[in-house]
Amino acid sequence: MRLQHLEKVCEQQSLDALVVSTPVNLRYLTGFTGTTALFVASSRGNRFITDGRYDALVREWMREGRFARLEIDRVDLRYDLTLAGCLERLGVRRVGFEAGHVTVATLRRWQEAASPVDWRPTEGVVEGQRLIKDAMELQVFRRAAKSLSRVASTARTWLAIGRSEQEVARDVDRALEREGFERPAFDTIVASGPNTAYPHARATDRRLRAGDLVLLDFGGVLDGYCVDLTRMASMGPVESAAGRLFVAVQAAQDAAIRAIRVGVAGSDVDRAARSTLESHGLGAAFLHGTGHGLGLEVHEAPRLARAESGATDVLEAGMVCTVEPGAYVEGLGGVRLEDDVLVTPAGVEVLTDAPRDLVVV
Amino acid sequence: MRLQHLEKVCEQQSLDALVVSTPVNLRYLTGFTGTTALFVASSRGNRFITDGRYDALVREWMREGRFARLEIDRVDLRYDLTLAGCLERLGVRRVGFEAGHVTVATLRRWQEAASPVDWRPTEGVVEGQRLIKDAMELQVFRRAAKSLSRVASTARTWLAIGRSEQEVARDVDRALEREGFERPAFDTIVASGPNTAYPHARATDRRLRAGDLVLLDFGGVLDGYCVDLTRMASMGPVESAAGRLFVAVQAAQDAAIRAIRVGVAGSDVDRAARSTLESHGLGAAFLHGTGHGLGLEVHEAPRLARAESGATDVLEAGMVCTVEPGAYVEGLGGVRLEDDVLVTPAGVEVLTDAPRDLVVV
Repeated sequence: MRLQHLEKVCEQQSLDALVVSTPVNLRYLTGFTGTTALFVASSRGNRFITDGRYDALVREWMREGRFARLEIDRVDLRYDLTLAGCLERLGVRRVGFEAGHVTVATLRRWQEAASPVDWRPTEGVVEGQRLIKDAMELQVFRRAAKSLSRVASTARTWLAIGRSEQEVARDVDRALEREGFERPAFDTIVASGPNTAYPHARATDRRLRAGDLVLLDFGGVLDGYCVDLTRMASMGPVESAAGRLFVAVQAAQDAAIRAIRVGVAGSDVDRAARSTLESHGLGAAFLHGTGHGLGLEVHEAPRLARAESGATDVLEAGMVCTVEPGAYVEGLGGVRLEDDVLVTPAGVEVLTDAPRDLVVV
Repeated sequence: MRLQHLEKVCEQQSLDALVVSTPVNLRYLTGFTGTTALFVASSRGNRFITDGRYDALVREWMREGRFARLEIDRVDLRYDLTLAGCLERLGVRRVGFEAGHVTVATLRRWQEAASPVDWRPTEGVVEGQRLIKDAMELQVFRRAAKSLSRVASTARTWLAIGRSEQEVARDVDRALEREGFERPAFDTIVASGPNTAYPHARATDRRLRAGDLVLLDFGGVLDGYCVDLTRMASMGPVESAAGRLFVAVQAAQDAAIRAIRVGVAGSDVDRAARSTLESHGLGAAFLHGTGHGLGLEVHEAPRLARAESGATDVLEAGMVCTVEPGAYVEGLGGVRLEDDVLVTPAGVEVLTDAPRDLVVV
């Protein structure tokens, strides 16, 4: 199924073949989880190029009969040479490559090794396919979002005055492990007090103090798919300025989620969040986009961000993304709330279901 | 110091400026640990381009006076637009970029945004600098290698019949954490029994059985720098065939380490290991190169591998790399031994010091 789409793209773009090199696209198409391989799709057959490190894996595929029509080429010395030989045997001339992954240096080597080939840049071919999740993928997402929400619900038990951000982050990571996640989707963020003002803070050795805001942003990978969640806590009663930040961000997140439906531009969803924060006098405090797609990567299409920043995606049913507005004021702190949603024919389904309120410890 | 080298390279290559975009090179030059930024080196001044996510970080740099002559450009919308404006203000025309990192798609966008610029591919400029470790880096390496060796020395306590590879891998990861490593340098490999025949096995839910060979390959990151080690164990008495594999690999590793000195090609070190394995009838069982450089990345230059595979590095004092021959026989299993070494003016210093013998549990 996933491979048939590529043949159609080749036909539409008048390509004799398409070389897929992006690891996550290779995984999507074939299940390959190694670091290096090439997949060559063509109407004359599909070929998979990899090296001796994956010999045993490839033999297993063969035994399982995983790909009815997939031939394997083994790299003995250099990928460019094996690729050139493969393209020559297929007798293809106009060959697409993934311009968003192939570096200028790699393309030069391919051009030198396969001189008769007319190399054509393509963008977003497999990514466009990955954008719309199929039933099997949605099943994983629903399970993963529930598990991640359970982790969030236990956050309260890890927070105590005197504990360091890093200690709390380790607790989060262990809870992810207990929930069956393969690994965290990114370095778990625990930011406290002044550190919350950094949108991309990392967990430091700073210890929690009375009056701190605490931001917990973490994600997990389940069967290869990433989910991502942010919740806020306060060590003791909330200061009024921080409370105002929280209320504004929560309203912005509500507005963004309400804006989501099929046919709406990602930039319109961003505008819904942004104008809410502006109406609270926090427009300049919103230092990033409203959300990003989720899938085999923790940041993928669609982008919910300002149109001027190049976000051009229009929402379709089957897309999964985060909704995570935030407001950051140096000297005061920052607040972010993040949930994962699925765009449905009927509107939107919020996949994560942990309580969103400010946890007061 | 590190920045002065770039000015020299610009002069040598007749470039008005050089744009560094590879994250690990940005970290090496400036300490920046975020995901996205650009560093523009030129004789008319150095500029650092990043976006709002790193505002607070950049202000901290400024307060610390970290870079006497570094100007910051903040991306409001798109990196290509900010870069174009920056290059225009600097008045530079011939601009180098990192061809090994910049994708074909990114170069197109830069070309469109900064049309007067004559873009020149460069390769290995910062990587060449990173290849030779300075005194501060060697201090980190020595400390990290000792810590990693201590982790290896306790491996025995985690291995027991009935425990799964994944459980053992978690023990390794926790030991890395206790030793002060920021994180594992890669997904910890624990392979047992037939799984040892896969050079890039991952830890699975397979449980250890009597008679299993067990391969433990793990690394840690300390102050950003990666170290990497592989040791072997046997669950009970070693079968004679596995024992022969072990003896051959140990001899190959010895031969490789003895071959290391200033002026020797990485491919010659590889040949030393390879011919030893060939003399044991295991030439075809050695499915990868003999070693790779270590640094801010767990795989970097120099490569100790076959010349035909493109390994062209010649060893110099200050290089740090792994020495890790292996032999893999499907149906029988695999053996790999890996240590980290520093090339010194006098020869070689083995940084890791965990006992190399087969641990019999």
